[in-house]
Amino acid sequence: MAADPLDNVIRLLGRLPGLGPRSARRAALFLLKRREQIMEPLADALAEAAKAVLPCPACGNLDTVQPCAICRDPERDGTAICVVEDVEDLWALERASTFTGRYHVLGGTLSALNGVRPEDLGIDRLIGRIGAEGITEVILALGATVDGQTTAHYLAERLAGSGAQVSALAHGLPMGGELNYLDAGTLGAALRARRPLA
Amino acid sequence: MAADPLDNVIRLLGRLPGLGPRSARRAALFLLKRREQIMEPLADALAEAAKAVLPCPACGNLDTVQPCAICRDPERDGTAICVVEDVEDLWALERASTFTGRYHVLGGTLSALNGVRPEDLGIDRLIGRIGAEGITEVILALGATVDGQTTAHYLAERLAGSGAQVSALAHGLPMGGELNYLDAGTLGAALRARRPLA
Repeated sequence: MAADPLDNVIRLLGRLPGLGPRSARRAALFLLKRREQIMEPLADALAEAAKAVLPCPACGNLDTVQPCAICRDPERDGTAICVVEDVEDLWALERASTFTGRYHVLGGTLSALNGVRPEDLGIDRLIGRIGAEGITEVILALGATVDGQTTAHYLAERLAGSGAQVSALAHGLPMGGELNYLDAGTLGAALRARRPLA
Repeated sequence: MAADPLDNVIRLLGRLPGLGPRSARRAALFLLKRREQIMEPLADALAEAAKAVLPCPACGNLDTVQPCAICRDPERDGTAICVVEDVEDLWALERASTFTGRYHVLGGTLSALNGVRPEDLGIDRLIGRIGAEGITEVILALGATVDGQTTAHYLAERLAGSGAQVSALAHGLPMGGELNYLDAGTLGAALRARRPLA
């Protein structure tokens, strides 16, 4: 029924997270109705990004320049490093515009289930940066999942004695969060970490 | 934060139906981790399909050959034509492997709200095919929506006197449908169209 190049587009789009076979067919038709405006620019952008966007050898962020724009920005605090699981988390923190230091992207979390060991995450490279770059503060910005917290504990142990102050993100109410929609774990953590107001 | 070609990928992916900004970022990272397996093949497939996949001048189906594989298949019944709104509907009917005739893709439905008039859907071209190709049966396979049914009624009127037998898809229970989950309209239609079993 469908022609070969179209089948290829549908099959490949269907492998993207969030798109199943049905939405991949819909997306392919959507693209064929917008060849000049979206389809061809997307083909070009994908080809260009696949060539030009590479992981930063220092921190693991993705950029067209090496080292990345964050690592080479002289305005950023070179003594603080924020450890994240993935580039997506780095982007999320950058949108929050709160952290002014540099990053270290692990590329995953330790996971006995998935066989991810410390050497797979290049944790030695992180330890190496502490001394080499004169880092005095390490913020562990890992997910509040079992694997995220396991990784945070492992890192905290490895970093003890490095001379750097190690901290982790606070747990508590998300902004706009309503108490009766929150899980017991979050509420308990928010209660334990309560702040005096006056 | 993110580099330009990557921003382009995220912006363009985010315009696909079913992908918002967040899932577009996730999809872009997913692709950058699978450059050779998915990202570059997808770029190539999109560029190739944008050039090679065109609407069939006879029926409106999308294919790399003109007329399309369905229109040029001598095994298919040239006297029956199935009218659909979109290529997606044609694909759905082909997956059902029940209809052996040819198609006519309208490219939409009549809609006073969206200003879609009969001339926008090339309905004259459909009428022309009836005589030119010796069509004796027209099946209106349009959605059971207000616009779909308005279009079906308009087409039935225009096709009256064309000499072709005009029919529409049956309404009734979907396969696997449970009565208590079905809407009143479907149940009513299924009841009115009940079939004697013995």
